Parts: sequence; C-alpha cells; structure tokens
Amino acid sequence: METVSTSKAHGGTLSVHAHESAATGTKMTFSVFVPPQAESGAKLPVLLYLSGLTCTHANVTEKGEYRRACAEHGIVFIAPDTSPRGEGVADDPAGAYDFGLGAGFYVNATQEPFARHYRMWDYVAEELPALVAANFPVDLSRMGITGHSMGGHGALTLGLTYPERFRSLSAFAPIVAPGQVPWGHKALGGYLGEDRAAWRAHDATALVEDGKRPAGAILIDQGDADGFLAEQLRPALFAAACEKAGVDVTVRLQPGYDHSYNFISTFMEDHIRWHAERL
Amino acid sequence: METVSTSKAHGGTLSVHAHESAATGTKMTFSVFVPPQAESGAKLPVLLYLSGLTCTHANVTEKGEYRRACAEHGIVFIAPDTSPRGEGVADDPAGAYDFGLGAGFYVNATQEPFARHYRMWDYVAEELPALVAANFPVDLSRMGITGHSMGGHGALTLGLTYPERFRSLSAFAPIVAPGQVPWGHKALGGYLGEDRAAWRAHDATALVEDGKRPAGAILIDQGDADGFLAEQLRPALFAAACEKAGVDVTVRLQPGYDHSYNFISTFMEDHIRWHAERL
Repeated sequence: METVSTSKAHGGTLSVHAHESAATGTKMTFSVFVPPQAESGAKLPVLLYLSGLTCTHANVTEKGEYRRACAEHGIVFIAPDTSPRGEGVADDPAGAYDFGLGAGFYVNATQEPFARHYRMWDYVAEELPALVAANFPVDLSRMGITGHSMGGHGALTLGLTYPERFRSLSAFAPIVAPGQVPWGHKALGGYLGEDRAAWRAHDATALVEDGKRPAGAILIDQGDADGFLAEQLRPALFAAACEKAGVDVTVRLQPGYDHSYNFISTFMEDHIRWHAERL
Repeated sequence: METVSTSKAHGGTLSVHAHESAATGTKMTFSVFVPPQAESGAKLPVLLYLSGLTCTHANVTEKGEYRRACAEHGIVFIAPDTSPRGEGVADDPAGAYDFGLGAGFYVNATQEPFARHYRMWDYVAEELPALVAANFPVDLSRMGITGHSMGGHGALTLGLTYPERFRSLSAFAPIVAPGQVPWGHKALGGYLGEDRAAWRAHDATALVEDGKRPAGAILIDQGDADGFLAEQLRPALFAAACEKAGVDVTVRLQPGYDHSYNFISTFMEDHIRWHAERL
C-alpha cells in the first residue's frame, strides 16, 4: 500500500492511499481519516462512505465536512473510489457519466467487457475492510456503511446483504430501487445482463422484499429539491417495502436541499452521530 | 450581477455570482453564504475571506467548512477570486503560480502590463462590499476580513489600512512581510515596481511600523508543519512589530498542521467565532 498524501486535519490524520487491488485487478485509491482518539492505541469503529456517479475518493474527502464529527465521536472514515480505472478498463461506449468509469454501481459485473475489472462489490465488502484493518487502528466488528446516490445504493445493498459485517447503515439520497429506474436499468443491465432476476441482489427494495434484513435501523436523508428525486431515487419505494417487512427506516425529506455536497455536508454530522451511537 | 448557481446548505443559501467589475475591467466571480438568520429580514454582519495563490472563489467555498459556523453565528461569508481573469489580462511571462493569474496580491498594480486589470485592492476594499450590500442582507458597519496565505496578507493590509471598514481581523498562515520574502519581492516588484517605498503600504509588518492600527485585536493561526513557514510567511516578523507598537495580536502556532485546507478548515470555526464576537 502506497501513501499518496498525509495531512493533519481536525486533530487527526487525513491520508490518501493507493494499492494494487486483487478484486479489480487495478490500482485503487482511497482516503482515510483517523481521528485523534487513535493516539490512545485503541481500535476504533470505522465507517465506509461510498460515493456517487462521477466521483472519486476526493469529492467527499474535500467537500463532505465529516472530519470534525469523526474527531468528536472517534470514528475512522474510509472513502473508496467508485470504479476501477486505468489502462485496459472498459468504459461506457459513449463515455456517458452513468456507466463505466466513475460508475461501478458496487456490483461484480458478469458481462463482458466489464467482468474482469468491475468488481466493486467484492472490493468494498471484502478487500478494502481487510486492507484497512491491516493498516489502520480499526475494529472491524464495529463497521458501518453509508453513501450518496449510487453510493447510497451500494451502502443499502451491502448493508442488507451483510448485516453481520455492516453494523450500522445510512444513506444520502440513495438509488433505492435500481430495477425500477433508468440509472439502474442501464447499470444493472450492462454489468449483470438482461436477466432481471440477477438484479434483485443489487436492488435494496427487492432485497427487503426478498427477506434480507439490516443489522438495525436505517437512516435516509433526501433533499426535496433534488432533481433526481422523482425519476431516479424514489425513496418511497424503499420506505413502502420496509414498512411491509417491518424494517425500521427513517426517511427524512429535507426541504430545499438538492443532490450536491451542499446537501451531504449539511447532514453529515447527523449521520456520523447515527453510526457512532450504533458502533 | 448574474447568479451562476444557488444551493441550500446548512440551513442557509450558498450562491455563486459573476459581475462586470469596474475596478478590474473584467468579469469577476465570487461566492456568498447567507445564513438562515437572514429569513428574519435582519441585516447581518459580513466576513470577507481572501484566498491564497492559485485559488479562485471555489477552493474555500468547497473545502473551507465555514458554513456550519456561519449558520450558528449569523454571519454572511463572501469569497472573491484572487485576480482578474479573461482575455486581455496579462499573466506571469513564464506562467508561474505566484504572479499574475490567481496571484493578484490584493494591490492596485502601477506597472505595465498589469496596471489596467490588476486592481484587487480597490475591488476588495470598495467595489465588492458595495455590490454585496446592494444585493444581500448585510450591514457594512459590521464587516470583518480574513484570508489565507496571500489572502492573509490581503486581509492584514486592508484591515490595517481601513480599520473603520474592517471591524474585525484574522488570518490563516498569512504572508506578513512581503517586503522581506521571495513571494513578496516578486509580486510587489512586478505590480508596484522596484521602488520599495511603494511596497510599505502593502506589507502588514511595515504598516504597523509606520503607525497603522487595526480596529481591534488580530488572530493569526499558523501550522508549524507548513512548508512555507520559514521562507515565505515568517509570522514572527509581524508579531515583533506588533509587540513594539502595542498592537494586540495572537499568533497561534498549531502543531503538525500544513498549509492546506486541512489546516484552514480545522480552525475556521474559531475564526468565525472570533469575528462574530467582534461584529
């Protein structure tokens, strides 16, 4: 693992690292914030943040405003990239923003030419936590997951599939039902093929319908001025499935907020606290 | 004045605006955060933040983490660009980062080919506050100024020259004595010419020596792991001049912090509070 940069921030250490990923077969980059509580030698709870379409690790690292709250609550914060990148990694044929590079959708692709490198599911569920545990003072038995938009989709599907690993769960403006919206049709079709039965393992609403249960309650924030709300995000679909299944989800519709980091950074502190209380 | 973008953040409104500047003869861009207290119809105190070399308004807007504290204290936060830009605006002949575009040094240039557009002193002291007062709910009798590095230099020189306008004053890792450091030699020489007597009006340490006094106490934060500390910033020169002159300055050397926004964002809340208590 290579250290790209390291800098003191909010009493802790913000660093960026790169490593050759076995899961994706590419070099992957991620950021880590280790709060000042690590100085005691203690192993700390850890929160994975999955970013949305077009992002790298850098967007939330620069604009997410999470470090102050992580320093307050003693949380290690990990922000991975959103797809494999580099020579030989297939992209959307038209270079669109919503598929291919920057848009891995947190699945293991089965379709060519994506199957070799697009394995973000394994990367986030397996490889990244193990790498982080080997190199930073974290206690993997106290790991939570959150994310934004496509990353909110990843957080929900991973959290519902592996409740024993992801002990706390939240999301910002997540894609909750990719099987029912255009972004999801394109991504799941492209990575997993047109057999929609295979999509259900990567659709939070379908997972709840199919009996998956999170480790505990779920917190979702969603801006009501978000331009993607009605067509792509549709949190009511997830809320309805959860209600039917008896899954405890709080969906907060935040008046006036859009889909940007202005929204995320506003409610980040609430989410850090949510995870800290459960980890 | 044209609105480039507007977005809700931390209960208030973050917006970016562009306008044809009379001072610089170019289109200038700045960001404004109006906190939720404006909903009452009250005119609020306002803080100008001047950015450092290479920055635009966007760096602090995205990475400064000021909005939460501004929302708490009811402060309007204004972030202008660091130089004129656009067709016909002269740049450093070699394209260096420390002169020309992105490096206006908050002076009115007297030397060609810079004299026509490089008038950031007038822009920040006169035009921008008037524009802001005409378009946003601010009380110019409660205006403070701060900034980072080159922008800390601008904040100190403007605050010392116009204590009746800038009622509170702070800086992050400022260039305190441009007449005694390489960045300043290049910039003041290039914009103001080689007669060093003209430089003293744009050198915070010289201004204090020459009898200028701020409206009140000054707060300076400086990271001790800042790679520019010993050669370019040298806060001890300013502290010594202030001590001799009886100017109340607090220089906090922050252990482990560098010159980046990781440093700025860590101490931004303290600076917002500093200004709020004085405005």
